[in-house]
Order: sequence, then structure tokens, then C-alpha cells
Amino acid sequence: MAEVADTRTQIAGDRDSSAIDGFWAVIPAGGAGTRLWPLSRSSSPKFLHDLSGAGRSLLQTTWDRLEPLCGDQVMVVTGVAHEAAVRAQLPGLALANLVAEPSPRDSMAAVGLAAAMLERRDPDAVIGSFAADHVIGEPEVFADCVREAVAVARTGYVVTIGIEPTCPATGFGYIRVGDSLAIAGAPNGRAVRSFVEKPDETTARAYLDTGEYRWNAGMFVVKASVLLDLLAEFHPELAAGLRDIAAEPARLAELWPGLTKVAIDHAVAEPAAAQGRVAVVEGRFTWDDVGDFASLGSLLSNAVAVPGLRVLGDVDLVLAKDTTGVVIPGSGRTVAVLGLDDIVVVDTPDALLVTTRERAQDVKALVDLLKATGRADLT
Amino acid sequence: MAEVADTRTQIAGDRDSSAIDGFWAVIPAGGAGTRLWPLSRSSSPKFLHDLSGAGRSLLQTTWDRLEPLCGDQVMVVTGVAHEAAVRAQLPGLALANLVAEPSPRDSMAAVGLAAAMLERRDPDAVIGSFAADHVIGEPEVFADCVREAVAVARTGYVVTIGIEPTCPATGFGYIRVGDSLAIAGAPNGRAVRSFVEKPDETTARAYLDTGEYRWNAGMFVVKASVLLDLLAEFHPELAAGLRDIAAEPARLAELWPGLTKVAIDHAVAEPAAAQGRVAVVEGRFTWDDVGDFASLGSLLSNAVAVPGLRVLGDVDLVLAKDTTGVVIPGSGRTVAVLGLDDIVVVDTPDALLVTTRERAQDVKALVDLLKATGRADLT
Repeated sequence: MAEVADTRTQIAGDRDSSAIDGFWAVIPAGGAGTRLWPLSRSSSPKFLHDLSGAGRSLLQTTWDRLEPLCGDQVMVVTGVAHEAAVRAQLPGLALANLVAEPSPRDSMAAVGLAAAMLERRDPDAVIGSFAADHVIGEPEVFADCVREAVAVARTGYVVTIGIEPTCPATGFGYIRVGDSLAIAGAPNGRAVRSFVEKPDETTARAYLDTGEYRWNAGMFVVKASVLLDLLAEFHPELAAGLRDIAAEPARLAELWPGLTKVAIDHAVAEPAAAQGRVAVVEGRFTWDDVGDFASLGSLLSNAVAVPGLRVLGDVDLVLAKDTTGVVIPGSGRTVAVLGLDDIVVVDTPDALLVTTRERAQDVKALVDLLKATGRADLT
Repeated sequence: MAEVADTRTQIAGDRDSSAIDGFWAVIPAGGAGTRLWPLSRSSSPKFLHDLSGAGRSLLQTTWDRLEPLCGDQVMVVTGVAHEAAVRAQLPGLALANLVAEPSPRDSMAAVGLAAAMLERRDPDAVIGSFAADHVIGEPEVFADCVREAVAVARTGYVVTIGIEPTCPATGFGYIRVGDSLAIAGAPNGRAVRSFVEKPDETTARAYLDTGEYRWNAGMFVVKASVLLDLLAEFHPELAAGLRDIAAEPARLAELWPGLTKVAIDHAVAEPAAAQGRVAVVEGRFTWDDVGDFASLGSLLSNAVAVPGLRVLGDVDLVLAKDTTGVVIPGSGRTVAVLGLDDIVVVDTPDALLVTTRERAQDVKALVDLLKATGRADLT
């Protein structure tokens, strides 16, 4: 580990701030963020929201983080319903780089279509796929990490970014790392031994004890052609379908519904890892997928005079006494909370949620209940 | 006790439904109901609200309860700020019977002014003072009780209605009862030995064990002239001031600010009890002063499919899972609550309160905090 730390210090002292030649960022902007209801809705999913209080949406901060690495070479893949909102939030995004999926077909089709389009523009293009709704703490550390990942990807690997775990999280999958790859420009590049599913807490603790496991943040850096060629091995029809659409974009509506719905992890990353064709670069930046209000709360700073209370929004609208947890005022109304621990209060113009951080994961069940009781318009 | 029960059965079988000759109801409609914030505000206090879900405000249900006993002989004393709202809610109230206090001067001035005005109209008038913001369960049992109280009052007593305690409540004062008075038409009339302040729970339990204590619901029935003559003994200047205003109503604004601020209990009831001049009629109706949301919650029926959850308002706006407590939707928005016990959620168009039934009494402190932080407009 000492060697790794030394290397990183060296990079930090001589930081490259130019865009990476031939590198494209692909941002799949999908997912409803159901566990963040009523803030996140199917009509206005979480990537369109400012969840850090920084004044920029998650999508915008994702853009901000990637722009130094790829300039305007950013491609966003989103649902047709969110095309206008994405365009409004990202004025720098070229129209040709905004792909509207006719329907959700999971991450392999989304990222794969972008890869197929970019492969035609530049056969040597390296793409990096980064979700539109994650929060990353240190953009410069992230950038260094991506530069290394691109260097590894140019040698033909599928490269994932593995986050150094800070706790035995049970909400993420893990990556088991192997030996260093000794690739020039990528001192932290290592082989991936395997991907493992979300563990229980005991297993997660055991993972951390070995020092061999990283969180799988779902970030992939790979040459577009490598990704599609691998996909052609494991899911030939899907690869062919995506390349057909890229060749004849007018056939999107016709071909899209027939594509296999599969996650990029299952479609390519896991089988390729089994063949020794996946690498990992460790990311030592803080990262969170903001999966629920407990997670969101831990990302917010203590912005008010009440210890243990986190507020996203206008703190002047919050009045709290003997209270810890997360309060999100969002309708202009005053939110008063008295005598509750680890509470979650989310105020929006048409719906209010009151729950606890402990039950944050179960908000999804509440949304299902809304749908089941004829109130899908609120979801 | 057997004798009392037998007598009441007899009354129930031969119920008098006519108005009581020479009887006036006086309704002091004051108090902000601070512990019911944000439902109750100084600009719209609790007596103006429907807190039972019956579609009538507490003031209106008070009127409804009294009208069979006194017809249109109802006098309401309220603050100038609420005069218009009272008039709008009680179209049957004659203008001459609506008294607007220039400023709050506690219950003795409010009830005493009404007594002084009515004494001039009818020297034999018996008045009954009933707060505008209490909830009473059985109006016919209440009516029988008032009839007995009036019969006792005609003999010269100050008569209070003592509620049979159903639990060792610490939020009410108590009345210690003495011997039966054997007055015709008032089989339940007994002497009052003393009034006692709100007890702690141990003391309250001891009170209940003796069988001698009743809750003091702050209801007084007394001849107007008796009340004022007693007041003239204990607070001569206040009695004179009230009679002066009644004689020359144009001097209200001039004389009112100089009146002593004192509760009717302290000014008259307690010293008169010490002289053996106070009687009690036991009220076997359910009664509550709806002092806070815990109290309000216990008055509401289980209106929804979630056991333990009480809703005041449109139940279709409430979505609850694994939750007990009180939810009051009041802004048209959906209120979703997940995984909380004994929660209190009160939703209004400009303010939201989240607390617990246990902390219901402390809502007052929260309102004080609002005032202290420059948000008095919300109180």
C-alpha cells in the first residue's frame, strides 16, 4: 500500500489538467430513484435534482466532473421523457450527443448504443461510463483515476473503477482485485479476479479484512470496439442490434424494443472478468450512489445549529428541537420537528414523507403502495 | 353511588327537551390553543376549527350543544380579532349578544362582563359559562347535567360541573366533592369542599382512589347577580368596573384596560368554595379540553385501515405503513408516513409539524422558538 500512496502523491504534485485525447464520457441518465420519493419521481428522477445543496443537479455535477477530462465529448443516454429536461440542464451538450431511449432496456443497451455510435465516429475511441446520479467528493482525485483507467483501457482491458471501502456496506457489489498490471501511466491498474454480489454484513466485514475488495461503483472505462466485441462474444444478437442502430439511426424505434434487457455487469463485465480481461483502478475519492435518504443524509453537512440534523434546502424554513436526522424543505413551507431521532422529513409541493433513516430503504414499498392505491400520479 | 345511578336512569327515561327559563349560556371564546400549532394560530385559534372531523368547529358544536337549553339566549365573548369569524360561524347569534374584548383580560373579566350585561336585562338570569373549545361526547347527558346545575344555582350557589375522572390525568385541576345538597330537581347536586391544582400522577391516583374527586372542566353555572356580588366581595374594583361597562357600554374601551386580569377560578370559585358557597353537579359525559395533539388524537376514531392511526381530515390523503399516531392532512397534499410509532404529523398550507404524542405538550416551546426566531407571523 505504501507504494500506491507514494505514487499518488507524485501524481497529485504533477497533475494533468488537459482533456484526454480520444476519450468520450458516456452518461446513462436513467433510473427513477424510487427510494428518494417524493423528491425523486418517475417524471423527475433523482439525476435531475440537486441533492447536495450545491445548486447543481447530480447530472450537472456529473457533467462538471467529466468536462475537464473530455471537453464536449460527452454523450448522454436518457429516456425520451427526460430528453427536454436533460437538454435544459446541459446547454453545452451537443444535440448529436443526446440519445433518447424509446423505452428502458437496462444499462447494457444504453451504454452499448453509445459505444456503437462512437465506434463509428472514432474506431479507437475510449469510452467511460459514469452514472448521472452518483455523488463524488474529490473531482481531481477522480480525474487522476480516470486518466489511469483510460491508459489501461487502451491496452484492451475493460477497466472498472473500484472504490476503497470505508465501511462494510451491504448495499453495493464488490470487486476482488488481483495483481498489479504494470501498465505505463497506470501505476494503480490491477487485474480483477471477480465481481461479487451485494454481501451480508458479516461477509462484507470479511471482505474488508482481506484488503482485496473494492466497491463496485458501476463505472467502466473501455475502448468502444472492445466493449462491443466482447458483447458480440457473450450476447451476439444484442451487439449486432446496437451496431445496426448506430449504422442506421432511423431504425432505432424499430430495433430497440427487440434488444435484450441486461445490465452491463452481467452482460460483459462478469464473463470478461472470468477470462482475465477486466482491470481495476482504485478510486480513493469519496463516492455514494445516494440510494436512499439515509445515504443522502450522510452526504449533507451539518448546516444548522441543531447537532445531528442535516438540511437539504433553505435552512431558514426548518425549525428543529431535540431532533436528529434529515429534513428537506421543498415547498416553501416552514417544517417544524420536535423530539425525534433519526427522522426523515421530505416536503414537496404535492406530497410529504415522514419516516426514519432506519426505514429509508423501505420507501420503495411505500411508493408501490401509492401505485397500488391509485396514486401513481404522485410517483 | 348506587343511588346516583338510579336517579340518572330515571332522568334519562323522562328527558326534558325544552329550553330552561331565564337561562343564558355564556361562551368565552378565547385562548390561542398554542399546543395545537400549526392547526391553531393566534389569528385562527382552536375554537374556530373542526377538531373532531364532524364538519363543525368547536365553537359551533358548543353552540349546538347549548341551543336546546337556552334557545338564542347565548352570549359569546371573544377578542376583537375574532369577532368577524365568530359572526360568520354563528349566524344565529344576535349582534347584541356578541361581546368583543378590546384585549385579553382573562376569564373573570370575560364572563363577568357578560354577567353584568345580563344582570341588567334580567336580574334573575342564571348564566352558564362553557368554553368554546372543549369536546363533549353525549350532549343529552350534558343537558341533563346543566338542568340540575341551574336548579342548584337558583338557590344561590356557584355551581360547577365536575367530570367523573376516567384516568389519573395530570393536565386538569380537580374538585373535591362533599355531601349531597338535597335540592329539588338536582339529585346529583353536592357541596364542593375545595378546588385543587393540577396534581402529579401519584396524587391524581390517590384522588381517584378516594372517589371524592372530579375533574374541574371550568364550567360554572350561577345567577349573574350572585357571581357579581361574590366578585364584589373578593375583587370589588373589578366587579364595579364590569358593572360600569354594562351600564355604559360606550366606556368599554376606556375602562377595559384597567380591569384586573384574573381567572374566574381564583377570583370567585376558590374563595367562595372556602365559604361553602360552591356546589357541584357531576357530569358523566365524556369531556376533553383538547389541550394538545395527544388529547386530540385520543378523541378521533380509528378512521383508516391502519390500526392505531388516527386521521383528522381527508383519509384519502394519508398513506401510512407500520405507523401509529395522529396525522392531520390540511393542505391537500398526500402525507406518507412509514415506520413511526405515536407520531404526530400536522400539515397546513404554510407550516408543517412533525412530533410525537409524548412531546405534544412541548409544542408550545416550539411556538415560542418560532416567535424568538422572527417567525411570529406563523404563530
